[in-house]
Amino acid sequence: MLLNGRATRTIWPEPAAAAIGVIDQRKLPHRVAVVRITSASEAAEAIANMTVRGAPLIGVTAAYGLALQARADASDLALEAAAAMLKATRPTAVNLGWAVARTLRLLQMLPRTERATAAWAIAGELADADAASNEAIGRHGLALLRELATRKRGERLDILTHCNAGWLATVDWGTALAPVYMAHREGLPIHVWVDETRPRNQGSSLTAFELREHGVPHTVIADNAGGHLMQRGQVDAVIVGCDRVTARGDVANKIGTYLKALAAHDCRVPFYVAMPLSTLDRSLGDGLAEIPIEERSAREVTHAVGRGPGGESVEVQLVPDGTAAANPAFDVTPARLVTALVTERGVVPATPQGIASLTEGSDG
Amino acid sequence: MLLNGRATRTIWPEPAAAAIGVIDQRKLPHRVAVVRITSASEAAEAIANMTVRGAPLIGVTAAYGLALQARADASDLALEAAAAMLKATRPTAVNLGWAVARTLRLLQMLPRTERATAAWAIAGELADADAASNEAIGRHGLALLRELATRKRGERLDILTHCNAGWLATVDWGTALAPVYMAHREGLPIHVWVDETRPRNQGSSLTAFELREHGVPHTVIADNAGGHLMQRGQVDAVIVGCDRVTARGDVANKIGTYLKALAAHDCRVPFYVAMPLSTLDRSLGDGLAEIPIEERSAREVTHAVGRGPGGESVEVQLVPDGTAAANPAFDVTPARLVTALVTERGVVPATPQGIASLTEGSDG
Repeated sequence: MLLNGRATRTIWPEPAAAAIGVIDQRKLPHRVAVVRITSASEAAEAIANMTVRGAPLIGVTAAYGLALQARADASDLALEAAAAMLKATRPTAVNLGWAVARTLRLLQMLPRTERATAAWAIAGELADADAASNEAIGRHGLALLRELATRKRGERLDILTHCNAGWLATVDWGTALAPVYMAHREGLPIHVWVDETRPRNQGSSLTAFELREHGVPHTVIADNAGGHLMQRGQVDAVIVGCDRVTARGDVANKIGTYLKALAAHDCRVPFYVAMPLSTLDRSLGDGLAEIPIEERSAREVTHAVGRGPGGESVEVQLVPDGTAAANPAFDVTPARLVTALVTERGVVPATPQGIASLTEGSDG
Repeated sequence: MLLNGRATRTIWPEPAAAAIGVIDQRKLPHRVAVVRITSASEAAEAIANMTVRGAPLIGVTAAYGLALQARADASDLALEAAAAMLKATRPTAVNLGWAVARTLRLLQMLPRTERATAAWAIAGELADADAASNEAIGRHGLALLRELATRKRGERLDILTHCNAGWLATVDWGTALAPVYMAHREGLPIHVWVDETRPRNQGSSLTAFELREHGVPHTVIADNAGGHLMQRGQVDAVIVGCDRVTARGDVANKIGTYLKALAAHDCRVPFYVAMPLSTLDRSLGDGLAEIPIEERSAREVTHAVGRGPGGESVEVQLVPDGTAAANPAFDVTPARLVTALVTERGVVPATPQGIASLTEGSDG
């Protein structure tokens, strides 16, 4: 997608396979900076400190991390240690564990001398597959948006999204925003309500940033406001991404997603989850009981980071000194609140049958 | 309630009726500052810029504003102009209009020469009545909390609240927090989840501040987190305040309240609204269609204010330059999602019958 008008990905291999480059998402929207990652531990650090974030992107970053490890030491022991380190960075998104396990499995079938080259190729294929999946999600989602637009007969089509499931959360295109970009490109009068998404404000910093780069009309709102807008008929559909979906269709996504799903259900607004198959965890059923939820630093809640009066990045304290805060980073939306899953293989209901239909005859 | 350990109200008359003093709530939690108000227009400004806020407190501030006007010029014309100015400051809370109309009506029955003295007395009585109402709400709410505590058999009793409906929102005691303070004083193991309440962060700045001053255990959370905590059984009851309640029990309160009510309903957590009768608007039925919702400045959403690294108050920008934001300040929770209304006359269901029972044989 576009960054300053130039087609860009969020992650790219440097020539000679010496390193990868990523956009530093902690600096957006006020500054576009690139971070160079040269080892598995730097990849792990970039995932943990959210230089890169978004379930699909952290999966690809971890695969490149293993590739960097294979260049340094391709022994089983070294690869397994790097895999464990990468997987431990963040617990909720399943793509991470999946990408690491898959890459490791493929490498361990090869002689040591071939692993470095193979690992680099595997990571690259994973990146390309992510971009292709998201483009397919975009096409399937676009069909839904066209239908909604037809019903609105030329009036503004209002989509609400939570957090950032745009191209910055993936290698390219995005999941939830891929259909939005395609709708905008073909001239549908689309407008996006952007939840700011406290505590890290991925909505106001990342989603607003990338929609702006592409000229898609949007309005940032406090996370508290979405229910009110839905009650007033000002939202035609909610589209969010996801970090892990269980076999029965429960969806882990950024904290606060559940609240928007409840409001959508109460106000009869369709609630769509854009889901690449890499986010499906067929080993789990009851998402609420089984998906591990990451607890992040209290400081994200007690403070906010933004651009200060002098243009510099400033962290301000919102609470009295010594105030405790809790910071669960994800929640689980039960399948019953999800209108449909938009996947690269089509739109399916969030039911065991719908999900089973996606993976029939494949290894997922 | 306590401020630095000393019993304090949020608003007080100065000797000789020359002015009123209020705590500047825009400076909390980092600084305790007092603002002196000497005219009706200064009172209106203090309400509009949220030096004072909270439905009960803005009602009392407006009454004192009229009293200050009566000292300067007690003619019908001057009083009516001041009343109109005060009422126009904020549209959603009904207490404001009610307090102004009531004070004006009483004054207009008196000869001009008696109005200044009478107005001061009326405002003082309104302040005392607010404190007394809230204390009664506290006692009735305490009975509910005792019952919940008994069921928990000594385990921590977890209350979630949104925005600030503590003593800072009123003259004294608070509405939603009055039962919490009483429960804490009698030794119930109470703990409060404090929604930070973007965009103005009244939870992290005001509710956390006043709970801390009273030693009530509490934890600040992002507005996104409450649903997740309820899903996990970590909330025993939600208690919020309100800005206007209709005859059928629909509740206007701070934006985001509706989302918490939906989650409470979905998770079978009791959802209580602490409501002084001054907040009841018997002239309205359908809250969603009829209660006016204030739209506030986009800057509250695009920016956040907190204490900077040097201890000074700093406003930081969260969004890219030029980003649009919407900022509805209240939403309406339908009566069907409200477990009960906790009023100074007892706990009643949020139904036409329950509400009618409160005002039988009185003028409201």
